[in-house]
Amino acid sequence: MAEKTQHDSYPCEVIGHVESPFKEKFGIPRQPGLVAAEGNLRMLPPYDDPVMFEGLDGFSHIWLTFVFHANRAQGWQPRVRPPRLGGNARVGVFASRAPFRPNHLGLSVVELLAIDNRDGVRLRLRGLDLLDGTPVLDIKPYVPYTDGIEGAVGGFAPAAPEARLAVAFTAEAEAQLAGRSQLRALIVETLSLDPRPAYHADDPGRVYGVRLVDVDVRWRVVAGRIEVMGLPPTR
Amino acid sequence: MAEKTQHDSYPCEVIGHVESPFKEKFGIPRQPGLVAAEGNLRMLPPYDDPVMFEGLDGFSHIWLTFVFHANRAQGWQPRVRPPRLGGNARVGVFASRAPFRPNHLGLSVVELLAIDNRDGVRLRLRGLDLLDGTPVLDIKPYVPYTDGIEGAVGGFAPAAPEARLAVAFTAEAEAQLAGRSQLRALIVETLSLDPRPAYHADDPGRVYGVRLVDVDVRWRVVAGRIEVMGLPPTR
Repeated sequence: MAEKTQHDSYPCEVIGHVESPFKEKFGIPRQPGLVAAEGNLRMLPPYDDPVMFEGLDGFSHIWLTFVFHANRAQGWQPRVRPPRLGGNARVGVFASRAPFRPNHLGLSVVELLAIDNRDGVRLRLRGLDLLDGTPVLDIKPYVPYTDGIEGAVGGFAPAAPEARLAVAFTAEAEAQLAGRSQLRALIVETLSLDPRPAYHADDPGRVYGVRLVDVDVRWRVVAGRIEVMGLPPTR
Repeated sequence: MAEKTQHDSYPCEVIGHVESPFKEKFGIPRQPGLVAAEGNLRMLPPYDDPVMFEGLDGFSHIWLTFVFHANRAQGWQPRVRPPRLGGNARVGVFASRAPFRPNHLGLSVVELLAIDNRDGVRLRLRGLDLLDGTPVLDIKPYVPYTDGIEGAVGGFAPAAPEARLAVAFTAEAEAQLAGRSQLRALIVETLSLDPRPAYHADDPGRVYGVRLVDVDVRWRVVAGRIEVMGLPPTR
């Protein structure tokens, strides 16, 4: 990293926090909208005044500017290895949306389901790719005519990842999911994206854990498909 | 405004500055892409290392997260009057992209024309809606499959503003523009959007000045069209 020079800095205050089913970084979808994960944005005072959100309910989607707070301690790198390139090729950090970036700012567009004003303001969201507890710095409406650019060219990420792995459950896991169809759907969607780091592909028997909602989903890859082995509670 | 509570705050360092033809707030297009204004993002060290931009040239557009630095002194308001609603109706600040917002963060998608590595890094951009000197906090590639949302609903701004005013030049102004076709085109595009505040519509003879590049464009509205009266240099 080149020498550090002192520049102007702007303090950005947290205006709210995300309540998400993703309880740890491992397993979080790498872009919003890939998994129909639902959650909330809980506003902090004085940003929890319902008048600040008047008219937002006419928009189907919103932008969240947030902080990759769990990655700040590790600083930033000039080049990163995007999962989309198999984890081997490197690109410049500004050519990626990687969390290990200067200022650790994130940007995510999510579906706005509802604005709950019963006790402060809580935005109900779908399509989250954010860690539980993520601090949010700004909210803006998604404006289709300016944000949806026809003919834009997407470099090394020209289209959504199409390959999804099949997800099967052991009898034990299936029993643990009785009556929890929403959690089951979240597990299928999340694991079908194959959260394994690319450099683990040669270790197919390895057992992984992904914390979703209130369970620790234990899973492995068997013959090219995901097998969910069990889901002990995390709390 | 409700009482102020102390929350976590993240310092965000300026990584570069925008070089823009828009030299004052008045007259700047209200969204990116409405005017083909060209400019640059000049990176500051250590963020001016070409390796940090490797692979970005494959993307046609980029997101800039920036600070509305010229609006910070005025603080923020819980509700704003968007120009799109004629300047009368108010909406919540988080339902708008107004600059008078908590943290004064802006978000703009612009076309990436080229990456100039000859002396540090300078990104050549088109479609700017940013004030000259705007401090930038982050750069991300525009990823079409996740950022371009089909069927998104745009609230009170469902489509680009279609009404554009005709722009005519006096003989004096035309003479001053001899040999400056690019500046002339920028003036036509910028003024055709009618930068007047809505509450001035009943004062049609009023003369305005808009600083573009190195001139102060003097103009007024005559019989429903813009008349450019002259353009004395600003420096």
